[in-house]
Amino acid sequence: MAEDKRTDVNKLGEFGLIRHLTKDFALNQKSSVMGVGDDAAVIDSGDEYTLISTDLLVEGIHFDMVYTPLKHLGYKSVVVNLSDIYAMNGIPKQITYSIAISSKYSVEALEELYAGILLACEQYNVDLVGGDTTSSPKGMTISVTAIGTTGKDQVCYRNGAKPGDIICVTGYLGGAYLGLQLLEREKQIYIEHPTVQPDLDNASYLIECILKPEARKDAVDYFHAKKLRPTSMIDISDGLASELFHIAQCSQVGLFIEETNIPIHQESQLKAISFNIDPLTVALHGGEDYELLFTVSPKDLDLVKFMPDVFIIGDIVEKDQGLKLHTSGGKILDLKAQGWQHF
Amino acid sequence: MAEDKRTDVNKLGEFGLIRHLTKDFALNQKSSVMGVGDDAAVIDSGDEYTLISTDLLVEGIHFDMVYTPLKHLGYKSVVVNLSDIYAMNGIPKQITYSIAISSKYSVEALEELYAGILLACEQYNVDLVGGDTTSSPKGMTISVTAIGTTGKDQVCYRNGAKPGDIICVTGYLGGAYLGLQLLEREKQIYIEHPTVQPDLDNASYLIECILKPEARKDAVDYFHAKKLRPTSMIDISDGLASELFHIAQCSQVGLFIEETNIPIHQESQLKAISFNIDPLTVALHGGEDYELLFTVSPKDLDLVKFMPDVFIIGDIVEKDQGLKLHTSGGKILDLKAQGWQHF
Repeated sequence: MAEDKRTDVNKLGEFGLIRHLTKDFALNQKSSVMGVGDDAAVIDSGDEYTLISTDLLVEGIHFDMVYTPLKHLGYKSVVVNLSDIYAMNGIPKQITYSIAISSKYSVEALEELYAGILLACEQYNVDLVGGDTTSSPKGMTISVTAIGTTGKDQVCYRNGAKPGDIICVTGYLGGAYLGLQLLEREKQIYIEHPTVQPDLDNASYLIECILKPEARKDAVDYFHAKKLRPTSMIDISDGLASELFHIAQCSQVGLFIEETNIPIHQESQLKAISFNIDPLTVALHGGEDYELLFTVSPKDLDLVKFMPDVFIIGDIVEKDQGLKLHTSGGKILDLKAQGWQHF
Repeated sequence: MAEDKRTDVNKLGEFGLIRHLTKDFALNQKSSVMGVGDDAAVIDSGDEYTLISTDLLVEGIHFDMVYTPLKHLGYKSVVVNLSDIYAMNGIPKQITYSIAISSKYSVEALEELYAGILLACEQYNVDLVGGDTTSSPKGMTISVTAIGTTGKDQVCYRNGAKPGDIICVTGYLGGAYLGLQLLEREKQIYIEHPTVQPDLDNASYLIECILKPEARKDAVDYFHAKKLRPTSMIDISDGLASELFHIAQCSQVGLFIEETNIPIHQESQLKAISFNIDPLTVALHGGEDYELLFTVSPKDLDLVKFMPDVFIIGDIVEKDQGLKLHTSGGKILDLKAQGWQHF
């Protein structure tokens, strides 16, 4: 029996494991345009494409009830899924929301969760159309599926970047990671000294980054209004470096990043230094920012120059030039991928 | 804060809880045709409808690793989701499959699970197009989303049954429940006497009902081939009685069921009696059969008469006549709903 041999899943990592487990699956349906391996699946629905993205969020892995208000959890769990639809240059229209809950959750607690879900649905104009509700022996597990649409001439994959293209991000990076560190620190203090009040007053920006991120609907609205189609796009959930590796690998290109152009909020700079962490490391590897990373053809440079909150961080180069980081000190280093590993 | 008051979720039950939590959600998107409250959500994709159904399966609640081979679990978890698409008179085309797993699961164990998923995909001609893979502090949680299509003049809801319609089911009921009882009994024997070998040789039909159910693709293929559109349809996951209540409530009708017409396999009859359970109770309330329960207009009687494995079990009547069961002893009783409650 197969159980005789035992390989730990950590050996393969999340992406390696998915590749390994799905290697024998083929796409046989005419309507299956894109399967496993992008932010969302792409299904041909006749006049346009239907986009489907799904996430599984587990208490104790993705969220900690000690410092996550349920309303925020409801909001964020929807938003991070919508972000995957935007990353395909699509517009989310519907979601399904499933929960497995242990008996520690009351109806009132779930009302808070659903108040957050409702707020996200209203904010992003999506409809809740289904889901499943069941019990769990321990804790809460959430599964969200987002459904959206995009034009057949609008869809953006990870694999369309070409040498000469400009690499952009839609906003500051690293805030969510630092917000999480802050909350974890306060949790430890609370565990050791339950009477000490949390000291989070000066950190509202960082706390909001981790507890209430937003998806970049405005960027996709801008693309559609200006008829600007990025050559590739991905949302930054595992960290900028990890997503750059996905773009490079899928597009079979190299890239060149200017350290000084990577956008880091002033509060993140200060907090990272107070934590004795390099702000750049946080921006490259922090994750959970949910900004969009995208590439555009040089002919579209003027259009992205005037896009609000957009930062140009580098260029796509030939594959054999590799993935390089031009540091503020003038050195050229190899970029290292090191996203959040949930295994 | 809302946590001051604490209402146990059991007080509302699964369906009551879903109704309560989703009551403030409206459908605002033009493309949202049907939201929460049927077997699948219905989305207008232009020429046809897209159907989306999702399930969350939790170790220790929906499956027990002591007697569930992982390959069977993979197969069944796909099939039960496809069943929801068939219940809308649709054809499933794609699935997404997400898992949260604890460190007790090896790569080899997951290979077994995915072998079952692949088999189901091949058997039912659906493509795996996405998912999420993450870790869990304890056990396994599975989330499957099925995506299908149906013609705008083919879709079947729960709410279309009319007085005079004929009520049909596609096959034997109660086998899955008895199979589960058998496995639970063997588990207890194993826990108490680990050296005793399981005695399941004469129960392959019942074991297959619980471990490897099939979705009724053939019935939907027949409907499409014969241009027969049921007036209402639902799949039997929570038990015949519970599903009859859904049809009656959604369609605002009553119904009259002939006990002698409820199909029970001979092995189920014998096993129920050996367990000292009424076979009828098992057929009405057992659940997990994944047969289709549907109603047709009397003009279509000849078409269902010649349908393989179809049993006519009663008639739709006016709402004020209630939900009645005509027993084999000649009595007329009120039908009672009592599905599987996972809370």
